[in-house]
Amino acid sequence: MISVVILGGGNVASHLFKALNKTEQTSVVQWYNRSINSINEFKNEVAIIDDLSQLKEADLYILAVSDDAIKSLSSQLPFKNRLVVHTSGAASLYDIDKKHKRGVFYPLQTFSKTAKIDFANVPICIEALESTDYHVLKNLAKTIGSPTKKVNTDQRKVLHLAAVFVNNFTNQLYRIAHEITESEGAEFDLLKPLILETAKKVQDLSPYMAQTGPAKRSDKKTLKKHLKLLQDTQHKDIYNLLTSSIQRTHGRKKL
Amino acid sequence: MISVVILGGGNVASHLFKALNKTEQTSVVQWYNRSINSINEFKNEVAIIDDLSQLKEADLYILAVSDDAIKSLSSQLPFKNRLVVHTSGAASLYDIDKKHKRGVFYPLQTFSKTAKIDFANVPICIEALESTDYHVLKNLAKTIGSPTKKVNTDQRKVLHLAAVFVNNFTNQLYRIAHEITESEGAEFDLLKPLILETAKKVQDLSPYMAQTGPAKRSDKKTLKKHLKLLQDTQHKDIYNLLTSSIQRTHGRKKL
Repeated sequence: MISVVILGGGNVASHLFKALNKTEQTSVVQWYNRSINSINEFKNEVAIIDDLSQLKEADLYILAVSDDAIKSLSSQLPFKNRLVVHTSGAASLYDIDKKHKRGVFYPLQTFSKTAKIDFANVPICIEALESTDYHVLKNLAKTIGSPTKKVNTDQRKVLHLAAVFVNNFTNQLYRIAHEITESEGAEFDLLKPLILETAKKVQDLSPYMAQTGPAKRSDKKTLKKHLKLLQDTQHKDIYNLLTSSIQRTHGRKKL
Repeated sequence: MISVVILGGGNVASHLFKALNKTEQTSVVQWYNRSINSINEFKNEVAIIDDLSQLKEADLYILAVSDDAIKSLSSQLPFKNRLVVHTSGAASLYDIDKKHKRGVFYPLQTFSKTAKIDFANVPICIEALESTDYHVLKNLAKTIGSPTKKVNTDQRKVLHLAAVFVNNFTNQLYRIAHEITESEGAEFDLLKPLILETAKKVQDLSPYMAQTGPAKRSDKKTLKKHLKLLQDTQHKDIYNLLTSSIQRTHGRKKL
């Protein structure tokens, strides 16, 4: 049995709480948040607190808070030599106060308030300074069904950056597709199966192998037609830049 | 029973043939390709030909050929007043010779040689000049389980353009993620669940609502860290441009 205290009130904290509270191999001892109101709905499931001095002993304290809050919150914790981890992709492990045993438990997934999360689809990137701490974190991930990967700081940071490309930037391409279809009264919904298939394709095939389309085959006629169709200057810029990126990727390799 | 002749030897032709040949409500009478070798493997399933003068009568002729070949192939067909359609997202309906009844049967999906396609996930965008022709095409799509949408030329062209954004450009973002993770020895595979979840999220939520991340919340510290991590100038340009696009989308609406 691993005993855990969760600190923070955002999406990662909520989803972690729900997952950890469900398994029998872990016990969520307390849930702390600066503002108790935002976790009040869980008061019948766990002891909720907004006062750090009430923190109980546990095997692990998970700081699921914003990057900027890690330093100060970890230094305010009224104990030392216990395992304290944060869940950030970008913050340094050393942002956690050195009076603690320190680690990172970074779930590489997008969390929203409403959508249910199956932690089997949430790889956890783990960093720890001590091997025993690493094993506690690995076992914790196992209890909620998550695959794990031991990473170093550089790897975690680059994964966080890559996540912005495949999540935020990709989603913005969906948004632009939404804008340009709606501008002609065409249905964005017609693109949904293609969006899903594009994501499924790279589950087995490398993105390099999966590429198709006018940019890759340098179909100048179609490229020209597309640029003519785009009304918005920034959309044109994005079209040109990503077309050129595809051509660089697929031109280079042909050499 | 709808009788069909397929013309062309690429991925769209192959997948259409397999789907149409399986259903009992359609009969693929012949499959024509300029080079018979590339469709030779199907000779036991259908009459394959490489000579247009051998074309038999059918309810429908599907030109699943490259955009540039539509004009000349359609004019070479040794008959008139029969329904001839192309499968292109970008080519004009009027590229088909005017001696025919003309239409477009554009499957909005990515087709690769190897991957199996379930036509339930392939919306067919239909254009026709006559209502009877439209119904033939709609019924044909129904036989292979595809949803259909009547579109006009502008809508079809804009859907084709939007498909480049959600398919080719998105796939290039996956590719860049692959490059930058590998450069640090991190595993691209860890991003695969996130890639899938990002695509799933917009099946129910608009891309506008689904957006998260440092660009949207103008987290300048993280944006700066990310730009510092990126080695490649073009990757930096893409990061800046898509960040600015996200901020434009989410800034505007706040006004």
